[in-house]
Amino acid sequence: MTAPHVLDPVLARIDATLPEALDRLMDLLRIPSISTDPAYAPDCARAADWLVADLQSLGFVAAARPTPGHPMVVGHGGAGGPHLLFYGHYDVQPVDPLSLWDRDPFDPELQDGPKGKVIRARGASDDKGQLMTFLEACRAWVEVHGALPCRLTVFLEGEEESGSPSMVGFLQDNKAELTADIALICDTGLFQGTDPAIVTMLRGLLGEELTIRAASRDLHSGMYGGLAANPIRVLSRILAGLHDDAGRVQVPGFYDGVTELPDAIRQQWQALSFDHARFLGDIGLSVPAGEVDRTPLEMIWSRPTAEVNGIWGGYTGDGFKTVLPGEAHAKVSFRLVGAQDPFAIREAFRAWVQAQLPGDVTVEFKGHGNSPASVMSVDNPAFAAARAALTEEWGRPAAFVGAGGSIPVAGYFKTHLGMDAMLLGFGRDDDQIHSPNEKYDLESFHRGIRSWARVLAKLA
Amino acid sequence: MTAPHVLDPVLARIDATLPEALDRLMDLLRIPSISTDPAYAPDCARAADWLVADLQSLGFVAAARPTPGHPMVVGHGGAGGPHLLFYGHYDVQPVDPLSLWDRDPFDPELQDGPKGKVIRARGASDDKGQLMTFLEACRAWVEVHGALPCRLTVFLEGEEESGSPSMVGFLQDNKAELTADIALICDTGLFQGTDPAIVTMLRGLLGEELTIRAASRDLHSGMYGGLAANPIRVLSRILAGLHDDAGRVQVPGFYDGVTELPDAIRQQWQALSFDHARFLGDIGLSVPAGEVDRTPLEMIWSRPTAEVNGIWGGYTGDGFKTVLPGEAHAKVSFRLVGAQDPFAIREAFRAWVQAQLPGDVTVEFKGHGNSPASVMSVDNPAFAAARAALTEEWGRPAAFVGAGGSIPVAGYFKTHLGMDAMLLGFGRDDDQIHSPNEKYDLESFHRGIRSWARVLAKLA
Repeated sequence: MTAPHVLDPVLARIDATLPEALDRLMDLLRIPSISTDPAYAPDCARAADWLVADLQSLGFVAAARPTPGHPMVVGHGGAGGPHLLFYGHYDVQPVDPLSLWDRDPFDPELQDGPKGKVIRARGASDDKGQLMTFLEACRAWVEVHGALPCRLTVFLEGEEESGSPSMVGFLQDNKAELTADIALICDTGLFQGTDPAIVTMLRGLLGEELTIRAASRDLHSGMYGGLAANPIRVLSRILAGLHDDAGRVQVPGFYDGVTELPDAIRQQWQALSFDHARFLGDIGLSVPAGEVDRTPLEMIWSRPTAEVNGIWGGYTGDGFKTVLPGEAHAKVSFRLVGAQDPFAIREAFRAWVQAQLPGDVTVEFKGHGNSPASVMSVDNPAFAAARAALTEEWGRPAAFVGAGGSIPVAGYFKTHLGMDAMLLGFGRDDDQIHSPNEKYDLESFHRGIRSWARVLAKLA
Repeated sequence: MTAPHVLDPVLARIDATLPEALDRLMDLLRIPSISTDPAYAPDCARAADWLVADLQSLGFVAAARPTPGHPMVVGHGGAGGPHLLFYGHYDVQPVDPLSLWDRDPFDPELQDGPKGKVIRARGASDDKGQLMTFLEACRAWVEVHGALPCRLTVFLEGEEESGSPSMVGFLQDNKAELTADIALICDTGLFQGTDPAIVTMLRGLLGEELTIRAASRDLHSGMYGGLAANPIRVLSRILAGLHDDAGRVQVPGFYDGVTELPDAIRQQWQALSFDHARFLGDIGLSVPAGEVDRTPLEMIWSRPTAEVNGIWGGYTGDGFKTVLPGEAHAKVSFRLVGAQDPFAIREAFRAWVQAQLPGDVTVEFKGHGNSPASVMSVDNPAFAAARAALTEEWGRPAAFVGAGGSIPVAGYFKTHLGMDAMLLGFGRDDDQIHSPNEKYDLESFHRGIRSWARVLAKLA
């Protein structure tokens, strides 16, 4: 337990300086740090430098550390108590289709929304707004008490949205420096937008891009249509066969390592009374797709999936062109659970595609990141402490939940540093992360900062 | 029969003035008259004006005639004998992917090729080079004899590559002016690149664009993947089901009006000894796709098809984005034969797609042109006369053939003007029309001009 005279002035300071904290976040949101597009590499570097300067202003010894891709930001500060590592990422998703944004994605604005004020910008929720909740909690602590509450390492990545290609190498090269007692990761959300939550199960991710080729050039469909193979049709057939009618993925061996949910967890999740009608209704849908005989929450948190994230081929402009194209392309991703092996699934998927190609038709693959699923050790007492801190701040019981998205770094921390991770965050399902008009609720930002102050007080 | 003293000096004049004829074609090829893209509308108008001026220089009374789209060029000249209408089109296909062109598509060049000199540019073969063979034959005739050989109407369209949306209305509005004894259409090719040919069967065309929609916005595939419907997967399933394993189109009623090839025509086509291995080998393929139990020539000339000409949805840029898109799109075209009704097939296709949509998923359709197939009346004596003229010029027997591509105007002439059409042209299968690096053989251009001089001599 933390004495009230330690925590209360920190919380008061957070409340009093919220406008300044918001200004700092707006500054960071103005930097278009899109990591997947090489054109934005200078912006990623600029975002890293901005964070280094901010960490230095809090007394951290911080630097932007070079990688083969975008820099990692590492800062060390504080002393005594447990050694906590905080992880977030300063890179953001691309913004296309830009036409669906109501304003410039990199011109952030505080707007009035139906449920309160929101911060509107790409990265507001994923993950700049979230990572700043931790830095602002540190700032309030330093301003009130003159020092950080314990030994802290802040570790901010610039390649999370593009498959973290430099992460494993960086962890291996800096193992001693980065290994702490536990990692705190702020890249997740509130459950159903209301209940504080700690994620204890994370799906893994495997990305594959395939290019199907037939004729050596684009053809006139009148001259060759009906005789020459059409790569779009071949690709459509392959993608259509990725799932059977019951929604099960058809790649051989895909379900190896997938176990049924333990009854205890199933019961705990059922107690959460997930409102899937509202969850789907928010995005204009009413009918759950996916595997039959699985509950919606079970599907999102504990079942593996295959999805097509992009497809293109032939003429896609205005009007019509009777072309029979020479190539067609798709980007496919797999969400992985349990002990599914991303490397084995990659090989199985590629072989499964190859086996379906008609004569003359070839395929080329390009891998886009892979990470296994993670299941956290909730018997670490830090989980109970954080759960209590979150329950106090939000006035509702904090839940242990799963997460559909992949946060591979949690698995990397475990595999390469032997370090457990605790994931807690303040995003909401309607934040439109990865979509046009991304936002972060001002309440998430404010109470997120307060939540971290409480968690630090409990753990320190 | 035409006396040699009438034709021979015209042929000699054509041979002597070939460089000047080539210069004129190059001028026309420099105009990027892409009809399907509204950005090129001024260039289409410029091409029309160029042709009007050229026709006027030959003594035609010519004008660019406004339509709701790009202008029609109409010129009247000559007197006496039969009234012949010549049709060609001055618009061209888009040029994407531009990166696959060896040079600017609108900077034409005479190049040395393995089989002789070629004119390299978008539209060189389809259809600017071909239409100019007729105008150059007229020019030589006028220069030698001081007048055109008979009453001629030249009718040049600017929307052939974008579905001819203005054609039917224009024919109806100008029926008396445009109705001649027969139409001559120059938009086809030599058979196997060597034998002069007159097309007597043409496939029709129906174009459809479909947009599949599910969620009201793009989603994060980690958060919603496995639960929300994915429009790309729905679209892939629909397109994959467009054909069965035997290559037959699965839209109900699609084959209504399709009859088996008469034995006489089948025998004539078999006598042509079509080299499908070379036809496919030219485009890097070796295995005929399409309907089982049909010969390749039969498939191209006399069987209906369904092809996907374009597909797009989700993230298609560099790198990876784990988006579950709100929309997916495809452009689908049908080649029609016999008495297939494009309107009935459009309705059947739309209903067939609708019936396959899962809950929450909707579709929007956009029609892109439709025309029935055409079968010519070869008992018109003009066909025998033209066949003899072509045989004389090329030194090989001219064939009556089918054509896989659609030239809807032939059907429109029949339906709206009651006028038969005779299609003859000098393109080659390796002209790469609708593809990067389109070309037209200088031999096609030169002997094409001579061929028209001979045909005019026979018909006049």
